[in-house]
Amino acid sequence: MEYSRIVLASRPEGQVSENNFRLEQASLPALAEGEVLARVLYLSLDPYMRGRMDAGKSYAAAVEIDDTMEGRAVAEVVESRDPNHAPGDLVLGSFGWASHGVQPGRALMKVDPDVAPPSTALGVLGMPGFTGWLGLSAFGRPQQGETLVVGAATGAVGSMVGQIARARGLRTVGVAGGPGKCEFAVQELGFDACLDHRAAPDAGALRKQLAQACPDGVDIYFENVGDKTVEAVLPLMNVGGRIPICGMIGWYDLGGLGAQGAEGRNLMPMAWRTILVNRLTVRGFIITDHYDRFPEFLAEVAPMVRDGRVTYREDVAQGLKAAPQAFMNLLSGKNFGKQIVKVG
Amino acid sequence: MEYSRIVLASRPEGQVSENNFRLEQASLPALAEGEVLARVLYLSLDPYMRGRMDAGKSYAAAVEIDDTMEGRAVAEVVESRDPNHAPGDLVLGSFGWASHGVQPGRALMKVDPDVAPPSTALGVLGMPGFTGWLGLSAFGRPQQGETLVVGAATGAVGSMVGQIARARGLRTVGVAGGPGKCEFAVQELGFDACLDHRAAPDAGALRKQLAQACPDGVDIYFENVGDKTVEAVLPLMNVGGRIPICGMIGWYDLGGLGAQGAEGRNLMPMAWRTILVNRLTVRGFIITDHYDRFPEFLAEVAPMVRDGRVTYREDVAQGLKAAPQAFMNLLSGKNFGKQIVKVG
Repeated sequence: MEYSRIVLASRPEGQVSENNFRLEQASLPALAEGEVLARVLYLSLDPYMRGRMDAGKSYAAAVEIDDTMEGRAVAEVVESRDPNHAPGDLVLGSFGWASHGVQPGRALMKVDPDVAPPSTALGVLGMPGFTGWLGLSAFGRPQQGETLVVGAATGAVGSMVGQIARARGLRTVGVAGGPGKCEFAVQELGFDACLDHRAAPDAGALRKQLAQACPDGVDIYFENVGDKTVEAVLPLMNVGGRIPICGMIGWYDLGGLGAQGAEGRNLMPMAWRTILVNRLTVRGFIITDHYDRFPEFLAEVAPMVRDGRVTYREDVAQGLKAAPQAFMNLLSGKNFGKQIVKVG
Repeated sequence: MEYSRIVLASRPEGQVSENNFRLEQASLPALAEGEVLARVLYLSLDPYMRGRMDAGKSYAAAVEIDDTMEGRAVAEVVESRDPNHAPGDLVLGSFGWASHGVQPGRALMKVDPDVAPPSTALGVLGMPGFTGWLGLSAFGRPQQGETLVVGAATGAVGSMVGQIARARGLRTVGVAGGPGKCEFAVQELGFDACLDHRAAPDAGALRKQLAQACPDGVDIYFENVGDKTVEAVLPLMNVGGRIPICGMIGWYDLGGLGAQGAEGRNLMPMAWRTILVNRLTVRGFIITDHYDRFPEFLAEVAPMVRDGRVTYREDVAQGLKAAPQAFMNLLSGKNFGKQIVKVG
């Protein structure tokens, strides 16, 4: 059977461009015992995919040139040789940037459309939401009355971090790009304040605004952006503060440029000194290490999504061929909410 | 009574110089009830004192201009209005860079000359040794068979870290300045290997040597130097690695220069990315937060010092007036072993 897919045509040098991708037709293999053929409904686009485009060592293997771009998707089962999956079922699996795919049935998770709209399995109730919840719970160790700062506050991870922190009694301050996102963060996501990093000419200016928004300092900085935001927030950290790191989208397209903030070459010594003087704990984590806690996450957060205590926003691109541009938008912060591609 | 002291004459701009200090005579106050007059025998010089010379915010107050330079010393009680201390007793206290001092008796710890030579209360069995032991135990979480790297390997902190790690079954790799120190680290302190950072033209060259000395990667990097060493070791960290930070002597005289390594502006993004990808835990600590564990440290390490399982080296400058030059030597790594001044 013929299907459409987007492959990695070349590795990016610096910023990702359309030329790094190629939309093509290909043939699916016949189903082996235990396998499932599914039609992709929604493809998730996530910042981690930027790392897969590089040849360098990362925590997961790079996508090879001419291979399908990696990605998780919600799909509808078309044909099944696995007794656990029947045609018409909705499943979550690593189908990549493609219209259809064949996967072992045991590699798929069922998606229950009665819990929430199926696309939420890619965002608020999927990997990004789980990343925010796990990182905050396990490594942020939030305490009532503390102050939390998170960047990309309206994104899939940041919006979860802010809403869970608020539910646990923290003061929550977001950073986002543009007045529309900041308004959404405060009005819809319940952040106590949200600062527009685009309106701050440099890290020092952003730091002054953050200092005003965080009169008691910062106890948790949930790191998912890097760059100007981390440079701004570090000196505001309180003694005993925690910095879980799940990503740094601001530095993914770095190329040879390095830290661009005003402190430039001083950023690392400043960061290290702040970690020492304020006894900070900085902890990197990769969400795939922690899926044993996914049921706990769903049990806590799915009811909050259902009754509106946790809200979310999706940015839906139409059609597989829109995926490259949507992905570039995501990397430059032009998306507004969890970036999804409606494929079929 | 007249005594000699060294005061902070001016704050350093960049590197510390003789001009920042002034040796002068002053008068001691009469003893109040509960106070003790003591004659300083040994003054400890430690890297943290560099921070006290700056006006900037740190974890402890700056020394004021014209005030006595801060420091801990072993002293002999001359006169006492505290029933817990008698003339002739040896005590440890914050007498500063001075020949004599008056302190409240309750602020002094007794030094037992039968345990070990009194000067060890400033080094291997004092604050620096405790810093190495606590940081390794509490935040390094060493496991048998792992690999540890520590800089300033023959210094008061680094030599404790290496010897305790070795006693716990780790492979220990030191970094030190010059072939003499490296030989001492291996021959006397029992490091499995020690690399001379002065012989490596840049962080990349040092990294290659470290990679050879650490064939299974690095599980614990005990950070007390910063600069070229951290730049070299970061990419070698294993998944789940730990980086306790107690200092960064290589960056203390930083002034406006910033990170000098080859990766320059890229150092912070590289560090942050490594922390993420390899799920590292970076933890700053200040030893004064942890003195509740000092008895546990002494109980474990004092017997090891007595029977030679833990060895140490002291670099002893003669006379109070030698303190400024000895301190500058310490900051530039010219000392060899725990830096002490024999005052009286």
